[in-house]
Amino acid sequence: MSVEKLVACIKAKNNPTVAGLDARLEYIPAHIVSDCIARHGETLNAAAEAMRIFNHSLIDALCDIVPAIKPQAAYYELLGPAGAVVLADTIAYAHEKGMYVIADIKRNDIGATASAYAEAYLGRTIVGGSELPVYDADSCTVNAYLGTDGIEPFLKECRARQKSIYVLVKTSNKSSGEFQNRDMEGKPLYVRVAEHFAAWGEGLDTACGYNEVGAVVGATYPEEQKIIRSLIPKAYFLVPGYGAQGATAKDIANAFNDDGLGAIVNSSRGIMCAWKKTGKDGADFMEAARAEAIRMRDDIVSAIR
Amino acid sequence: MSVEKLVACIKAKNNPTVAGLDARLEYIPAHIVSDCIARHGETLNAAAEAMRIFNHSLIDALCDIVPAIKPQAAYYELLGPAGAVVLADTIAYAHEKGMYVIADIKRNDIGATASAYAEAYLGRTIVGGSELPVYDADSCTVNAYLGTDGIEPFLKECRARQKSIYVLVKTSNKSSGEFQNRDMEGKPLYVRVAEHFAAWGEGLDTACGYNEVGAVVGATYPEEQKIIRSLIPKAYFLVPGYGAQGATAKDIANAFNDDGLGAIVNSSRGIMCAWKKTGKDGADFMEAARAEAIRMRDDIVSAIR
Repeated sequence: MSVEKLVACIKAKNNPTVAGLDARLEYIPAHIVSDCIARHGETLNAAAEAMRIFNHSLIDALCDIVPAIKPQAAYYELLGPAGAVVLADTIAYAHEKGMYVIADIKRNDIGATASAYAEAYLGRTIVGGSELPVYDADSCTVNAYLGTDGIEPFLKECRARQKSIYVLVKTSNKSSGEFQNRDMEGKPLYVRVAEHFAAWGEGLDTACGYNEVGAVVGATYPEEQKIIRSLIPKAYFLVPGYGAQGATAKDIANAFNDDGLGAIVNSSRGIMCAWKKTGKDGADFMEAARAEAIRMRDDIVSAIR
Repeated sequence: MSVEKLVACIKAKNNPTVAGLDARLEYIPAHIVSDCIARHGETLNAAAEAMRIFNHSLIDALCDIVPAIKPQAAYYELLGPAGAVVLADTIAYAHEKGMYVIADIKRNDIGATASAYAEAYLGRTIVGGSELPVYDADSCTVNAYLGTDGIEPFLKECRARQKSIYVLVKTSNKSSGEFQNRDMEGKPLYVRVAEHFAAWGEGLDTACGYNEVGAVVGATYPEEQKIIRSLIPKAYFLVPGYGAQGATAKDIANAFNDDGLGAIVNSSRGIMCAWKKTGKDGADFMEAARAEAIRMRDDIVSAIR
């Protein structure tokens, strides 16, 4: 699913947000977790089953109002092979429900190895005469520290299969400036990364006006967002940091273009853990997640008008 | 297993090399692959089973002469959940055979997420009252683009469990200079990364003279290696790029300290695909891998004398 379809989904739902599905067990209501432990013991399989049920329920609760999900690979890897099963299942289920999927993997490696990652998350694995989909997300996040060699295999999948990527430009965390904001030959490193987008995005413009090569730009740094927005107007921004990490709707307004598009704002814990604020022990986690997703949508849509 | 044990293994085997276990199907002899496809069809399970057999055989062929293995996560992820099973199995089998394991994952994320990665690869996952090992490698590779936030959770596992990490400083690929060699306030970015090792390694010195915080420094850039070696003498270097990527033993001599220690040189395709050069269709892949590992050991040991 290209960035073009992401834009279509965002327009149809009038909602430029993505739900991060990054559950630790403590984010999952106790009745789900204890049921799974009762059936499978205190095992990684029990934890994975709880995560699967939680993800399916959240997708059911959100799919008609939220255009996309962003599973964060770390939380699936934390459950070992059983977590890998849930990651594949979650992506497939979101696709069934018409959602765009961003695999948040932040991979990076030398070319030959980056090819394996690109094939795993966006492409196909060849076994004998068969080309098999593996995780088959619509897009993924990529780290550019190794330069173009490590990006090119992902671009190849974008070209071949109408996929998209989000390259880390300016991350949302506190120490992101430690390297990203230091001056590199007259400009901050994050600007130097953004300067490569023209070359990386060659041949990947789409009819919606945006390029398949997007950028990760943290909501927590509105000034940098403004600078990056002006440098790469055709890049879709994946914007983490809203909610639990402290950024407000006002902080993310700079990530959008004048067309009201150009960015998709992530909320993970805000949506997943909304049930913790209603005093009902998680019995209402689906309704709570949906209510928070609507509140967030309205908050952001009103800020970018 | 701390860097201290790595050094003990290197000394015992007089061999500062690590075997990269990064098999694509085309690196595995056809008789293994076709057997697995005959049993499981053209599936990811067939490919994973071929990889498991190949890895076990290579570990059997190498464990008395090679101190460590480096599975590259990408090639396991390429096989989906079945690949995750093989990764866990490969690490466990190498441990049974007394080898040190470097999980080459190059992970990077905001603190909360980096914690999940650190727990998955070096630590434990908590389910109910149980602390469960997941991949449980001895060490892993980490990308520092996000700064200290993304490194600290790995350091926590190093402190708690005597694990080690290798932070990407100067990578072996062609475009590694695109960002890493550009000038950042008077010094190349890779030097700026190396400058953080003192803080990251605090409290992680070991009795062998080396710190648990190591560095990835490509064999393909001997000049940079020399500079980094002098900047962070107590960091163990993980050195990719020997063999298939073009670097010779002479090129990696700068990675070592005067004590003959301080670096472990990786070979992946050189060892895995050694059977392709003997004209025996892979029947002798174990012998060929062992012969190449011995040739490489002798080549490197003689260059650093």
